[in-house]
Amino acid sequence: MTTLIDAHRAFRDELLKAGLLISMGVDGLYGRSGDFERIVEGINHAFSTVGDPDGPDVMRFPPGIGKAQLEQSGYLRSTPQLVGTVHSFAGSDRDHRAMIDAIEKGLDWTAGQVTTQVALAPAACYGVYPALAARGRMAEDGALVDVYTYCFRHEPSIDPARMQMFRQREHVRAGTEQQARSFRELWMERGKQIVGSLGLPFDVDVANDPFFGRTGKLLATSQREETLKFELLVPITSTEQPTACVSFNYHRDLFGRAWQLETASGALAHTACVGFGVERLTLALLRHHGLAIGGWPKKVRDVLGL
Amino acid sequence: MTTLIDAHRAFRDELLKAGLLISMGVDGLYGRSGDFERIVEGINHAFSTVGDPDGPDVMRFPPGIGKAQLEQSGYLRSTPQLVGTVHSFAGSDRDHRAMIDAIEKGLDWTAGQVTTQVALAPAACYGVYPALAARGRMAEDGALVDVYTYCFRHEPSIDPARMQMFRQREHVRAGTEQQARSFRELWMERGKQIVGSLGLPFDVDVANDPFFGRTGKLLATSQREETLKFELLVPITSTEQPTACVSFNYHRDLFGRAWQLETASGALAHTACVGFGVERLTLALLRHHGLAIGGWPKKVRDVLGL
Repeated sequence: MTTLIDAHRAFRDELLKAGLLISMGVDGLYGRSGDFERIVEGINHAFSTVGDPDGPDVMRFPPGIGKAQLEQSGYLRSTPQLVGTVHSFAGSDRDHRAMIDAIEKGLDWTAGQVTTQVALAPAACYGVYPALAARGRMAEDGALVDVYTYCFRHEPSIDPARMQMFRQREHVRAGTEQQARSFRELWMERGKQIVGSLGLPFDVDVANDPFFGRTGKLLATSQREETLKFELLVPITSTEQPTACVSFNYHRDLFGRAWQLETASGALAHTACVGFGVERLTLALLRHHGLAIGGWPKKVRDVLGL
Repeated sequence: MTTLIDAHRAFRDELLKAGLLISMGVDGLYGRSGDFERIVEGINHAFSTVGDPDGPDVMRFPPGIGKAQLEQSGYLRSTPQLVGTVHSFAGSDRDHRAMIDAIEKGLDWTAGQVTTQVALAPAACYGVYPALAARGRMAEDGALVDVYTYCFRHEPSIDPARMQMFRQREHVRAGTEQQARSFRELWMERGKQIVGSLGLPFDVDVANDPFFGRTGKLLATSQREETLKFELLVPITSTEQPTACVSFNYHRDLFGRAWQLETASGALAHTACVGFGVERLTLALLRHHGLAIGGWPKKVRDVLGL
């Protein structure tokens, strides 16, 4: 593993030195330069070029979701270790002085922080399902939503492609099983086409999510056996361990059940989503085409609108 | 106060009903529609039209900052009650089962969450100062940074203009006292010009921040007396209590001292920033020109590029 860690560190150092990423003193938490963001916007442009003609509803969520929404989503059941909850100070003047005293002494000052009603979004689409359910029973053609969210996952890593805060651009489909499955098939082809047009090498494989604990082992097995999630993998810091840059998910009626999301006939909705990890794709482009956008192949820049 | 609360509730209900905001079950936490985001982008466009020619460094930070950065910034000293810290699960399989059990029984499940190294950004510019300091002593002409960040403040409210998660677009100036003060004067004029060109009524006044506790009273007095912060206020839900939509801040050497940020001569840098609250300006536009962008005055749409 030493070589992989070295490769992560070397690429991160290269990105920091070039000013594309800006250190914030925490593994996985970085500022981005203007050029980095231009590439991020370029990936969104490429995604929109393919996806916009489908006429999705556009929803944009803040980086948080309601704590009650997180509870209801089921995410804590499978992957509690990645979740971030937001806590805040609710003490007195005296408590405040004790907090400042602890900070000055370099001690832990967060013991008194209390839970707020806000948690951080674990994936871009978690705000979509309750929003759709609140509209009542869907029309015959179901629902299609375009969403883009800053997400949080607590997995500090020196791998620049494993950030704690990152953005996902998604299309989310809800409707019958057939509608959800067709959507995923369509986007698996589109995803390969888009990433191919960016001049990146890739592979598509069944995913293996880091579900937690004993229950997690069962979830991971069923995810694999039922091929609920595919990932499009691009080598970034390693050819042997490529990075999942796009995911194609079919959730069966998991969210339909969690939110009582109903199709036109009153059955529980099935859902699917395609998620583009825009920071990971940005890093893949920087890795394969170089750190200066101006030197990238013209064909690639055209796809990105750069 | 009842009438003000009624006005807040009425405007929020109107926005939710029109689909411009999407409920997430928490006061101050909302999804945004595609149209809402078009206006947000329009305000950024208007800001860029005026600010880009200055040639700022572009930095884009995630919605979080390092907890150590937050400690060093001094924000916890003045305004601890608004800060969000991010906590996460770090327990065993058994702890996880207890957590799920608590969720199912509707009990608090967050007691076991432990502090991470990540906090939420209280303002857009908090990532900028340590990033500048890391570069070493500044050049003669100081530094100018363009920043745009999703911020968090724990102040649940039914006032749609007081969100818990919202974006600030800022220019940040660092250099000599003269450079910082001139920048602020320049942007006070520009701010009035931009907001005026959007057809919004406004006033500029000395700010009155909600600093915490006894120390806070002293800070508030000095902020007023030294006119460290001006706000551009637009009536949104109330004429008597207009909403601060843009702020013009001169920090003296507060951040220079916190981060040992040095001018070319080795003196502690003075800093200033101008921050546009893009959600608040969006809400002001919706309030004054109507909920349908198509019906807005052409002059206003031109400024926004819409």
